[in-house]
Amino acid sequence: MKTIVLKHNSSCHFESRIWSSFEGGARNLYIGSDFRAFFLRYSNAVSSIRSKPSGLEMTILKIIISVAFFFVLSSMCTAQPRPSMLVDAKDIASIKIAVGKYPLFDSAYNDARMKMDAALAAPMDVPVPKDAGGYTHERHKQNYNEMVAAGILYQVTKQEKYARFIKEMLLKYAALYPTLGIHPAAASDSPGKLFWQSLNESVWLVNTIQAYDCVYDWIPSADRKTIEENLFRPMVKFFSVDQSFILNRIHNHGTWMSAAVGMTGFALRDTDMVSMALYGTKKNKQGGFLNQLELLFSPDGYFTEGPYYIRYAIMPFFVFAQSIDNNRPDLKIFEYRDGILKKAFYTMLQLTYTTGQFLPINDALKEKTYSAPEVILALDLSYKKFRNDPSLLSIAKAQNIVTLTGGGVEVAKALSIVKNIAPFPYSSFELRDGADGTEGGLGVLRYGSNDDQMLALMKYTGHGLSHGHYDKLTFLFYDQGREQLQDYGAARFINVEPKFGGRYLPETKAFAMQTIAHNTVTVDEQSHYEGKFDISEKNHADREYFSATDKNLQIMSATCSSAYPDVLMKRTVLMVNDPALSKPVIIDLFRVDGKSNHTYDLPFYYSGQFIFGNTLMNSFTDKQSPLGKANGYQFLWKEAEGTADGMMQFSWLSGKRYYSVSSAADSQTTVYYARIGANDPNINLRREPAVILRKKGTSAVFASIIEPHGLWDGTIEISREASSSVTHITVLASNEQGTVVKVERSSAPSWIVMIANGTAADNIRHIMNINGVEYSWTGKASIQKL
Amino acid sequence: MKTIVLKHNSSCHFESRIWSSFEGGARNLYIGSDFRAFFLRYSNAVSSIRSKPSGLEMTILKIIISVAFFFVLSSMCTAQPRPSMLVDAKDIASIKIAVGKYPLFDSAYNDARMKMDAALAAPMDVPVPKDAGGYTHERHKQNYNEMVAAGILYQVTKQEKYARFIKEMLLKYAALYPTLGIHPAAASDSPGKLFWQSLNESVWLVNTIQAYDCVYDWIPSADRKTIEENLFRPMVKFFSVDQSFILNRIHNHGTWMSAAVGMTGFALRDTDMVSMALYGTKKNKQGGFLNQLELLFSPDGYFTEGPYYIRYAIMPFFVFAQSIDNNRPDLKIFEYRDGILKKAFYTMLQLTYTTGQFLPINDALKEKTYSAPEVILALDLSYKKFRNDPSLLSIAKAQNIVTLTGGGVEVAKALSIVKNIAPFPYSSFELRDGADGTEGGLGVLRYGSNDDQMLALMKYTGHGLSHGHYDKLTFLFYDQGREQLQDYGAARFINVEPKFGGRYLPETKAFAMQTIAHNTVTVDEQSHYEGKFDISEKNHADREYFSATDKNLQIMSATCSSAYPDVLMKRTVLMVNDPALSKPVIIDLFRVDGKSNHTYDLPFYYSGQFIFGNTLMNSFTDKQSPLGKANGYQFLWKEAEGTADGMMQFSWLSGKRYYSVSSAADSQTTVYYARIGANDPNINLRREPAVILRKKGTSAVFASIIEPHGLWDGTIEISREASSSVTHITVLASNEQGTVVKVERSSAPSWIVMIANGTAADNIRHIMNINGVEYSWTGKASIQKL
Repeated sequence: MKTIVLKHNSSCHFESRIWSSFEGGARNLYIGSDFRAFFLRYSNAVSSIRSKPSGLEMTILKIIISVAFFFVLSSMCTAQPRPSMLVDAKDIASIKIAVGKYPLFDSAYNDARMKMDAALAAPMDVPVPKDAGGYTHERHKQNYNEMVAAGILYQVTKQEKYARFIKEMLLKYAALYPTLGIHPAAASDSPGKLFWQSLNESVWLVNTIQAYDCVYDWIPSADRKTIEENLFRPMVKFFSVDQSFILNRIHNHGTWMSAAVGMTGFALRDTDMVSMALYGTKKNKQGGFLNQLELLFSPDGYFTEGPYYIRYAIMPFFVFAQSIDNNRPDLKIFEYRDGILKKAFYTMLQLTYTTGQFLPINDALKEKTYSAPEVILALDLSYKKFRNDPSLLSIAKAQNIVTLTGGGVEVAKALSIVKNIAPFPYSSFELRDGADGTEGGLGVLRYGSNDDQMLALMKYTGHGLSHGHYDKLTFLFYDQGREQLQDYGAARFINVEPKFGGRYLPETKAFAMQTIAHNTVTVDEQSHYEGKFDISEKNHADREYFSATDKNLQIMSATCSSAYPDVLMKRTVLMVNDPALSKPVIIDLFRVDGKSNHTYDLPFYYSGQFIFGNTLMNSFTDKQSPLGKANGYQFLWKEAEGTADGMMQFSWLSGKRYYSVSSAADSQTTVYYARIGANDPNINLRREPAVILRKKGTSAVFASIIEPHGLWDGTIEISREASSSVTHITVLASNEQGTVVKVERSSAPSWIVMIANGTAADNIRHIMNINGVEYSWTGKASIQKL
Repeated sequence: MKTIVLKHNSSCHFESRIWSSFEGGARNLYIGSDFRAFFLRYSNAVSSIRSKPSGLEMTILKIIISVAFFFVLSSMCTAQPRPSMLVDAKDIASIKIAVGKYPLFDSAYNDARMKMDAALAAPMDVPVPKDAGGYTHERHKQNYNEMVAAGILYQVTKQEKYARFIKEMLLKYAALYPTLGIHPAAASDSPGKLFWQSLNESVWLVNTIQAYDCVYDWIPSADRKTIEENLFRPMVKFFSVDQSFILNRIHNHGTWMSAAVGMTGFALRDTDMVSMALYGTKKNKQGGFLNQLELLFSPDGYFTEGPYYIRYAIMPFFVFAQSIDNNRPDLKIFEYRDGILKKAFYTMLQLTYTTGQFLPINDALKEKTYSAPEVILALDLSYKKFRNDPSLLSIAKAQNIVTLTGGGVEVAKALSIVKNIAPFPYSSFELRDGADGTEGGLGVLRYGSNDDQMLALMKYTGHGLSHGHYDKLTFLFYDQGREQLQDYGAARFINVEPKFGGRYLPETKAFAMQTIAHNTVTVDEQSHYEGKFDISEKNHADREYFSATDKNLQIMSATCSSAYPDVLMKRTVLMVNDPALSKPVIIDLFRVDGKSNHTYDLPFYYSGQFIFGNTLMNSFTDKQSPLGKANGYQFLWKEAEGTADGMMQFSWLSGKRYYSVSSAADSQTTVYYARIGANDPNINLRREPAVILRKKGTSAVFASIIEPHGLWDGTIEISREASSSVTHITVLASNEQGTVVKVERSSAPSWIVMIANGTAADNIRHIMNINGVEYSWTGKASIQKL
């Protein structure tokens, strides 16, 4: 008997099916077929043991064994081993073995012990909620962190002090929770009770329920009743009834809430909760976790809110998925939708720069790296789940922390053994956006080793929910381990109470989301989609072409026709490596094609010390005013204004290298030096500089070359090639078929850069006749050297 | 005979004396007595070998031996072993042994070899000088670096390709130099020919002459003649005749030139040059190296120009000193003036922060650390000279580079052997300024380990020559490995050609030197000493008292009565550690005592993200003007203006910690938020923020507490104690005897801070009666907790 059960690897797998099949809810959607499958496999296993029984014998035997087996398992299931959320009994066993063996795991384990020593020695505090980022907020976070640690420690050591800690704290919460109304600092449509928003409360429950699960068996049933009836069930009710619109929402808040409700369902053996979590409060798959897995990710694993928020959402996705895997293995959650969780995880890592920083499109705080705790957990779980993928180890090493999970053990073990850890294999890639992959996308080009990698990003996704920015076709440029042409990110000092309670600052919406805050074109000083969420959310940019196969000529191209009623925007970005260059250059061709006269503004938010500009500028050195009145312009001081005289060029110094932008221009091009900071009385915004090109007309082409050059080392006082090598950049022609640009450089061959604007199949031959000269190329793009 | 010579340790020591005594110049100042001393010692040595000769026998013998010895040595001297500048024959021998043994030395050696492989493969270029920071400038620097490397490599390997390289390059220089007039980009009163200023030319010669010395014996004498007569001698003449005022100047430029001339003298066996270098062009000790050693350093080893320039000057001081030690050991140059070179070296290291950054008072570029090549060389030489002081190894490790010297071998060897390298023993200290130690000084208080050290600096020195700033009693504050209240330093992008040829930018004088650019008091919007060098150079601030013996109450106090005709300024800075505080706090009491009505401005140039200010401000969000018209004020945008309502408090976030300044104020105190950047059309200045307190009246006390607090960690989204704990700070009284200030904090005892303004001997009892309350303390200061 035992042998057969082991053949199926885990009695609990079966148990969860059984258990589900005997309780209410949506179980029958899945359970029946699974049980049938099991029965068949089991029967076959039995068949293979005994040879040649008679037909009747066989039938009777099968029935007897099956019935017996069924009852044995049923009785096992009532005593289903806990924990079974992030860790199961096997993980606990591996943790017991790991302690004292692998330094990184030891460190995590000892941290937990020390944290609990301190917590056990200190007075327990479950304060009445008050603030949105101050003591009570932090204390409730601390409390669940301590409970989670105590839960694991209890499982590993079986010392009752840990279980008692959780029980007592939960009883305090059970006493407090029923007395609470909506949080006094609540400011959104989704308030919490313990926290100012229900999001934080979901996070609290996702954590706390793990602790409860760990010590469930130890807590006297009367106390369990108190805790469940006064705390967990009311909280789940608060979520699933009062805020069902959140739980059903296709948004990371919904995922956190699904995880909270679903895991509570597993812990309380309440399949109704589980079903609501999986399929939405109406259990019709119009909400809940599976729907979120369907709709929040593109087929490539791109998370609709972008890199910064998948960093956050990856935690409820993985925590709940792991819990599902432990409780409902039949769901094969990690294989769901062609392995969408795995894609999401690896895509998330690719959406970091080599420093670990998440590429800060949409609302994003730049201090966030892949060392965020959510990513550490996801990595540990992934490492174990995805067969100890060694490519994850360099990131695990940078994280330098593991979690108290089975995956944490595996990672720590590998890091203590593996000597030469390969760098994470960052690559160029394009990701489609939209649940079905048809809503634009995101292109990332890279060149160079992780030590000094150039990266260019173009964003042509959909809006990306409430944290999306109005920045179609925006462009980011990294080099030397830092942003060189930057995205502002979001204006927020997370959890910093004196800064608007640690919430998003008003300047996020008023400035950081607006188009002019980005390295993309603003038309007529109005943001894309008039800066209106409802319009933008319905639209997206479009992929045109992307190719990174030739490392010396990588290219991405996208269009957007919906940001403005009568302007078609098309941006094509080339990353060009040439033996004559010390570093690759970026060629950035931004074509705006309007039907009437417009003003087109393209900023370059450079990051570093301004060195030189070739435009004669009128500097407002003695009196400074904002660049405009609205749509983000009111936050930009106009430092200087000038009219281009041929090519516009400016250079800055950043780190050990110079950078220049050289852009085709003429006397119709206005140049502004701007700086963030006007209309910002609370100094909420960073005083970052920008150079803005303004062109007027029906159509325009911004043709720029972005060029790293030279070397600066203040320690040894060396400066080389502080000036750009580009002497001219000229748009020879640009039409619906293609754009042809000439780049001239001092003491180097000129380049004729030819790109397709229309069809760009690799075998299509393009011919453009410009002033009697024929320019031709095949496929997407070509550079001809003169 | 040989035995006897060896008894004196080195034939070369003696040789240099002999050689000096038979050539022209100032030799007789020293040589006669030295030779006599040697003769006596030698005679005694001989006496000790032979027992009991008769008196006459003895006399004759002495004469015979002496004469014979004299001639032998004379003949030896013509063949004096080279090299004898930075390295001598013993060093070369130790280098030969070291190669392949100590990784860091190997790295330096292989770098030199690779550099020379590249140089030998490339066309040699000795270009006609053209620019002040561009190709020709860099090329001439590259050339001497290559020659120095070639010289050492020749000595170690005896491969003629290295010697030939130097010879050929020097012949090119010998052909070029006579054709040169003053450098075309020359802009000072001390132009060079190869370089835009003679300073760089001195550096060129200091380096080149070492290379020449290394291959001297290999170069055919006819070529030597060409090189010496067309290059070295004319260059020395250019220095010692045309620019004798530089060579005789008490300034680091003079030291470089002394070193250049003196080392050329050693190489060319020209004692006239050596004498000019040592004693000035008139050889009267009114100029030259020894005079510089006398006058450029205070008795404590403080270099008059400050930390940034001793970083630079340490090189000619140590290079020339080492060359003197090798050629004129009789001068006992490292023992000169009670070991002033050693003091200068260790003082220089103490004048860095734990990051290695030089404390940026006066003209200073902040990127300079103790990893500057000059410091690496000085450290290597010092390590050997000062008996392998292990306290230097942590710095050597951070430098991670050693020089191709005997000291470099020793350091690399130690780093390859020593396992537990102790951190550099940074300490609190006061340094007197002025050649005789009577011209004020500099106080530095520190607390905490090198990992997270708090540092407070007050400057009350003399002016510090041409790079000095008008910033008496200025204050710097470091914490967490970075400046928190910063000094602007200098406005310069060194060697960056597009930025004013890499020279000091005009904004250095116009802004960075001015008083308002510093964390000290400006009176009536006029800089100290009217910003006039001639006046400031004649004056200095004065030390009052300094005590760092009690680590929990460190204090420094200084006054300045000369910066303004009728205002006495007195600043007292306390670094207070208290068990109730997570970090020490600074109490900063700045008393200004005028005879008539004045406007007193005290800025705090904080470094980080503004978080909160408690003053109701009128923000110039839509139109911004400069704070003033002149004396640096014209470079400050007035972002906001307000009137204090009781204590003025503001906070910023920097790194993982919050900082607050809380300052006693009332409705007579105006508060400005300012930002550097007005009247700066070329964006030469960093856009740094400041909060400026303005008080009006005959006298005023700025009583402030500077408080690190809390914790911020964006990765794990933790923010604690974002707000200051200080609720009130009040000046209870301040007179000539003392100042008494009350500091009140939320949920902590209040402090009564009492400091002496007059005499502050440790045993003096001070009693102040304020509104019927008696405050008393003994000595400099006391803090009473209520």
